[in-house]
Amino acid sequence: MAGKNILVMHGGGPTAVINASLYGIVAEGKAHSEIAHVYGAHGGPSGLMNGTLIDLSSMDDSELVRLRDAPGSAIGTGRDALAGHYPAMVELLVKNKIDIVMPTGGNGTMNTCALLQEAINEAGVDIQVIGVPKTMDNDIAEIDHAPGYGSAARYAAQSVGEVCCDVHSMPIHIVVVEVMGRAAGWVAAATALAETCGQGGPDLIYMPERAFDQDAFLADCQRIIDTKGGGVVVASEGLHYADGTPIVEPVMEVERATYYGDVSSHLSNLIIKHLGYKARSEKPGLLGRASTALRSESDVREAEEVGRAAVRAALAGETGKMVGIQRIPGDVYGIETNLIDVERVRMIERLLPDTFINEAGNGVTPEFKTWAAPLVGELPRFVSFL
Amino acid sequence: MAGKNILVMHGGGPTAVINASLYGIVAEGKAHSEIAHVYGAHGGPSGLMNGTLIDLSSMDDSELVRLRDAPGSAIGTGRDALAGHYPAMVELLVKNKIDIVMPTGGNGTMNTCALLQEAINEAGVDIQVIGVPKTMDNDIAEIDHAPGYGSAARYAAQSVGEVCCDVHSMPIHIVVVEVMGRAAGWVAAATALAETCGQGGPDLIYMPERAFDQDAFLADCQRIIDTKGGGVVVASEGLHYADGTPIVEPVMEVERATYYGDVSSHLSNLIIKHLGYKARSEKPGLLGRASTALRSESDVREAEEVGRAAVRAALAGETGKMVGIQRIPGDVYGIETNLIDVERVRMIERLLPDTFINEAGNGVTPEFKTWAAPLVGELPRFVSFL
Repeated sequence: MAGKNILVMHGGGPTAVINASLYGIVAEGKAHSEIAHVYGAHGGPSGLMNGTLIDLSSMDDSELVRLRDAPGSAIGTGRDALAGHYPAMVELLVKNKIDIVMPTGGNGTMNTCALLQEAINEAGVDIQVIGVPKTMDNDIAEIDHAPGYGSAARYAAQSVGEVCCDVHSMPIHIVVVEVMGRAAGWVAAATALAETCGQGGPDLIYMPERAFDQDAFLADCQRIIDTKGGGVVVASEGLHYADGTPIVEPVMEVERATYYGDVSSHLSNLIIKHLGYKARSEKPGLLGRASTALRSESDVREAEEVGRAAVRAALAGETGKMVGIQRIPGDVYGIETNLIDVERVRMIERLLPDTFINEAGNGVTPEFKTWAAPLVGELPRFVSFL
Repeated sequence: MAGKNILVMHGGGPTAVINASLYGIVAEGKAHSEIAHVYGAHGGPSGLMNGTLIDLSSMDDSELVRLRDAPGSAIGTGRDALAGHYPAMVELLVKNKIDIVMPTGGNGTMNTCALLQEAINEAGVDIQVIGVPKTMDNDIAEIDHAPGYGSAARYAAQSVGEVCCDVHSMPIHIVVVEVMGRAAGWVAAATALAETCGQGGPDLIYMPERAFDQDAFLADCQRIIDTKGGGVVVASEGLHYADGTPIVEPVMEVERATYYGDVSSHLSNLIIKHLGYKARSEKPGLLGRASTALRSESDVREAEEVGRAAVRAALAGETGKMVGIQRIPGDVYGIETNLIDVERVRMIERLLPDTFINEAGNGVTPEFKTWAAPLVGELPRFVSFL
């Protein structure tokens, strides 16, 4: 037998460790003689549609290790509307002699897995589908956490810890740091761990799981000003009022897309206008999912392991499954991978549970910090006389 | 003799290496028996005014090394209006038995050095003033570059290199990254070095040394969209029109301070509204001067050396001088410190010279890259198939 061919397709925005999962797939593929080639679809599913496949198994080992540490998606990723194209995709998989397809992404991508599996079944061909989870937002269901989250969380936590040192050097303003995460506050919540850096961490954290109350926000900020002279506020990009309206005005509608202003500058402007106090806004945005220097070690390791587990699952004959990450119970942090039917994951958005958000809705619980700490890893502790 | 006492006072915003200079002062002070104590003024000059001095020379060596790597200012910094207070400061220096005062900061702080020296001369007391340069903006005159700049430049360059990888993974938008630097484009210019990361670097860089032309900007962006589908634009926070007006509207005036909107969101909104194309804005802001992970090695080393040189200058009897950094001519990068009369530095803002900005005013010259590369240090080169 000639050996099986794997095709990896990236979907949605990159994470800091999407290439680590890709590395795991290629490295594990090269370790099994049953795998002939590992290909990457250039630019996501469109790479399959237009025949641009990259042979990753031909990489030499030194280059392969560097792949693990590259930001962005080294093969490109896509956000294509695939409805109606699944039968054509199956034909192209057959034509390109692909035996195993590995869509890598979040909830939407797991929906792609399910629809692709249906089209494969209808075509009656022998192609396996193994989903590889990936999202910095951490909103994939059925898993303890998603590859990509730990690094985004570490970036946000350490950066906020450093900003706290800066702000407490001269407490003359409130600094609002906006973090990504859309409807889910997982990354915002993780900034609470910045307290271990030695300056108390952020004073307030606003997550989209709680409706935004402008009066409560301004009262919270006034209290920080009165007691500390200045401080650090973390806000999720997805904040909205109780009726679901985003707290930022739409800047422009272009075709079906609506563009909103920045949450951080909106909040800092509120402080300036209503409290008459200095405020700054910081929005690292894409820097938070592209940073290589602030990746979480466990995240890199687990992302690779998820890729390797996907190859082993394929060799075991599995299909229509996503590789999961489950935490091993006990006091010492450890994970194991498992396989989850993609039907149980597709299009479900997992938000922060109530037990992780404090009563005032402006911070997290000790339970969340215990949960998140091993994913972020130990943060540096900074010397200060303040 | 009992030994001399040094007082360090930080002024203005912190840099990533302000504590490295402080470390250099304390370490060099401890190495000379002629120095009894090194104190830090808590919160800048106001620490002297209200008697809050921190004895840094009592730190043990392991803690002292950690001081070198702390973000923010470990003793606090100030932006106090000192006019009229200089005679009182001199009295307090005498009362606290301070023999050597080391204001650490930028052009404004060197003006403080000059005014303090005048007050000392008028009082007829024997106190030495040695200025220690510090600014991420790199706008101090008479020196090759300022401690703090290399790290801010490295942060901006590597972050933009990583964002380039992210954007080229799915080129569906223009990303505008705003960097600090007020009237000086030194940090913005340094992002050109991101090209060595392997994705071509930023497509456009706008520096405040050139008047902003909205039509030229939109034409530049349209060209990037047409040729590449998406890309990365770097903009300095200090951009203004030919008449000197900032390109962003004032949000609010509070007492004498005017608060402006963000340059990055203004520019991304222009792209959305005028070109009908997706655009994002990222504004790492304070993260860029507080990051410890992306500090430049040469910057850390030189900041420490500037602190050590300040102590040696004081022991040699110098006063009214700022420690300078001069580049040793030749192909191999090296610096030496010298002493510069603070009169030659005070209140002068050094901008990018014309030879460092390209003709179109939207990028830098090869000459700038050659100049900046050793300050930033080697950047990681990322694997990509795009």
